[in-house]
Amino acid sequence: MSNKYILAIETSSSICGVSVIHNKEILSVEEKDESRKHAESLPGLTKSSLRNINKTLDDIDAIAISIGPGSFTGLRIGLGFSKGIAYAKNLPIIPVPSMLSLAFSLKKYEPKHGILHSHANKVFFQTFRWKNNIPFSNKEPIVGEVDDYYQILSHGFHYNCEELLPNLKQLHSAKPSSSNIGQLASIYFADLVVKEPYSLVPNYIAPFKTGI
Amino acid sequence: MSNKYILAIETSSSICGVSVIHNKEILSVEEKDESRKHAESLPGLTKSSLRNINKTLDDIDAIAISIGPGSFTGLRIGLGFSKGIAYAKNLPIIPVPSMLSLAFSLKKYEPKHGILHSHANKVFFQTFRWKNNIPFSNKEPIVGEVDDYYQILSHGFHYNCEELLPNLKQLHSAKPSSSNIGQLASIYFADLVVKEPYSLVPNYIAPFKTGI
Repeated sequence: MSNKYILAIETSSSICGVSVIHNKEILSVEEKDESRKHAESLPGLTKSSLRNINKTLDDIDAIAISIGPGSFTGLRIGLGFSKGIAYAKNLPIIPVPSMLSLAFSLKKYEPKHGILHSHANKVFFQTFRWKNNIPFSNKEPIVGEVDDYYQILSHGFHYNCEELLPNLKQLHSAKPSSSNIGQLASIYFADLVVKEPYSLVPNYIAPFKTGI
Repeated sequence: MSNKYILAIETSSSICGVSVIHNKEILSVEEKDESRKHAESLPGLTKSSLRNINKTLDDIDAIAISIGPGSFTGLRIGLGFSKGIAYAKNLPIIPVPSMLSLAFSLKKYEPKHGILHSHANKVFFQTFRWKNNIPFSNKEPIVGEVDDYYQILSHGFHYNCEELLPNLKQLHSAKPSSSNIGQLASIYFADLVVKEPYSLVPNYIAPFKTGI
């Protein structure tokens, strides 16, 4: 675990959030749920999240970011903004896997697997193990049709799959939050930190075709 | 005109570039033409562009950015990175219209109108006037089918319309460059500068449907 002050940014879904974490403790959280506004909201949320605790960027030691999989544009906006700050302040970036963070949001249940909606009826699927209430995974998320995983999903989690599944009652509902990203960054700092983060890219898993 | 040191960023097309401009003079340019790599390339290009002239971000007074229209993802990445730096260094942003910059790349011809490829057979069209070899426009770009403008295009410019037009000989070929963005930012500093740039958004003109 790290005693660094971490600015944690979550943009992998419709939720846009910025937290400040120290020694795994959540000092400040600012979050909004509003699609397509991440690029506009991030600087203001960052400012508020620091101001809440009378800190400035000069007090921050590292930036944690939800690295994917998740919203293509959301991930790019979050990483772009993080790189700008990291570049200007010479800070490292800690890329935190999005689904590890979703699992961590349900740590009291210690879910062993989960699904995250990708597009159409496609989902990302990942398995997790737990030690001392902290998740880890030796396997990357994989993409498939929701039906491929439905049989093994019980007692797992889902995010954003309400419209895909006939019966959600057997699943825990995960929720993205920058506070989870920051706490995992604090826990896994030494494993994940990227000191020269310029060429860091989102972990799309299933890239979409798009423009530039 | 401004005597500020301006870091100029161009990401509105496949070209990713960073220049340093002072008093309208180009001090440094670093540019790459490679689609889908802007988020990865921007920090390195920024570093090189400053290092070329033994400057650091502490010497920079403002950030100029190509604000659109252009590539949806490219514009978001450029603006996200710029906001990160602007936030960390408390700098203003100067949003420069992309097509004004394309016109400026052909200032020796003083083109009065131009088109920029949007998608399928759609183009952005804008008209320009000139004074002392500097373009200005009182009209926003509009979107239409390339055929709508073809009759009036002679002696204008195009960018990225090679596959749409049967005869390109009558048109000048414009080229995006961060140096044009920076020079126009130097010229139009007082008109364009945004001192609280957090809520600045790209000027998409024709927004695409996408995720977040």
